[in-house]
Amino acid sequence: MRRIRLTVAYDGTNYHGWQVQQNGITIESELDRCLTELLGEPVEVIGASRTDSGVHALGNIAVFDTTARMPAEKFPYALNQRLPEDIRVQAAEEVPSDWSPRKAPSRKTYEYRIYRAQFPMPTKRLYSLFCYRSLNAAKMQEAARFLEGEHDFKSFCQSGAQVESTVRTLYKAEVREEGEDLVICVCGNGFLYNMVRIIVGTLLEVGQGKREPADVERILAAKDRGAAGPTAPPQGLTLIKYEFL
Amino acid sequence: MRRIRLTVAYDGTNYHGWQVQQNGITIESELDRCLTELLGEPVEVIGASRTDSGVHALGNIAVFDTTARMPAEKFPYALNQRLPEDIRVQAAEEVPSDWSPRKAPSRKTYEYRIYRAQFPMPTKRLYSLFCYRSLNAAKMQEAARFLEGEHDFKSFCQSGAQVESTVRTLYKAEVREEGEDLVICVCGNGFLYNMVRIIVGTLLEVGQGKREPADVERILAAKDRGAAGPTAPPQGLTLIKYEFL
Repeated sequence: MRRIRLTVAYDGTNYHGWQVQQNGITIESELDRCLTELLGEPVEVIGASRTDSGVHALGNIAVFDTTARMPAEKFPYALNQRLPEDIRVQAAEEVPSDWSPRKAPSRKTYEYRIYRAQFPMPTKRLYSLFCYRSLNAAKMQEAARFLEGEHDFKSFCQSGAQVESTVRTLYKAEVREEGEDLVICVCGNGFLYNMVRIIVGTLLEVGQGKREPADVERILAAKDRGAAGPTAPPQGLTLIKYEFL
Repeated sequence: MRRIRLTVAYDGTNYHGWQVQQNGITIESELDRCLTELLGEPVEVIGASRTDSGVHALGNIAVFDTTARMPAEKFPYALNQRLPEDIRVQAAEEVPSDWSPRKAPSRKTYEYRIYRAQFPMPTKRLYSLFCYRSLNAAKMQEAARFLEGEHDFKSFCQSGAQVESTVRTLYKAEVREEGEDLVICVCGNGFLYNMVRIIVGTLLEVGQGKREPADVERILAAKDRGAAGPTAPPQGLTLIKYEFL
């Protein structure tokens, strides 16, 4: 058996997230369907990040095993002919048969985009959060700095999630302005369930003056989901890339 | 009667263009429906630019007449509550009752976005043309320069269109690179039917080396639609703004 690694981009708008579900089409179920059709053998991919409904990706990672001899670099072309147009494989390569996208050490980069204006802009609605309130970007950046480094992010994890440890390292948490957009970029060795969206919901409260930047230190120390801000809506979030170390 | 001018943004993906049609929902028909509901009197807007199916706008212009006393600045809020989320009024103001969006002298700015990569990117598919071929941006810019100024753009007008004159002035025709995107920006006093998309189709042929930049002069001189390149697909095109002089 050979193990093939795919880099997958998708628009999450019309999917029930990544993971196969009983009700509703998912990114994973579409990949499984197209690979099974293409290879004539049952295929189930393993994904690196199980993104939620409405969340997008430029480069999520999936692996699958196959006995087929098709050269790895042919898979993007063969799969993209079968996939719906809102899912596109960007790259494929062979990896060792014991390589796991969930266990391999990696840096993941996410961006969350906020469109600031008086009225929503239709062409941005699927890929950003609309915000008519004024936001203090400098204070948001100041707050984000407290998240950098190794911390117990339990306060930024959706309660009910089952994980062995809630300690993660953020290499970067940056707030930048791109015209009318405010982009929150986080890079880390791993993210808990809803962690980026809870970080964004908390930074938005800082930006609106409802919290002070230094509150982030107290939120981390509380290790309690109730201490952080709300979970920001999914459509502003995009998984930008995986880098394997 | 008062005349109100609306600045309207929309995602054209799900519409049969601007103009009211017997089959299919249009931007104009949605505006008419919502204004008629809101004001309790039959309203028909007049649009500045009748964009095609799939073409987007950040700032198209429409006017309508009403006896209602609602302050102009309230219209965006009242209409946006009724409109589908892919249409959003950005501004409203009262204008003289004989002011016409089609006759008032104006500068219109369009952008056409081309995404250059090996594989399509799903989150860009609705707002750009995917192009895997390499494009010589410098040659495209050189070609675009020949379009600037006052010319008879008959070669760049969809044949069959009925207009009194095919002479227009382009104040700017610019090709710029934004990362993986190539953006063609044109600003002029008016555009013929499909003119921007035929300009783009022609510049794409220059970018691929199928034509030389100087061919544009010969295409203009021919005054024949057959001399120019193909009409580029609609989804890359966005009407950016109207400026009334």
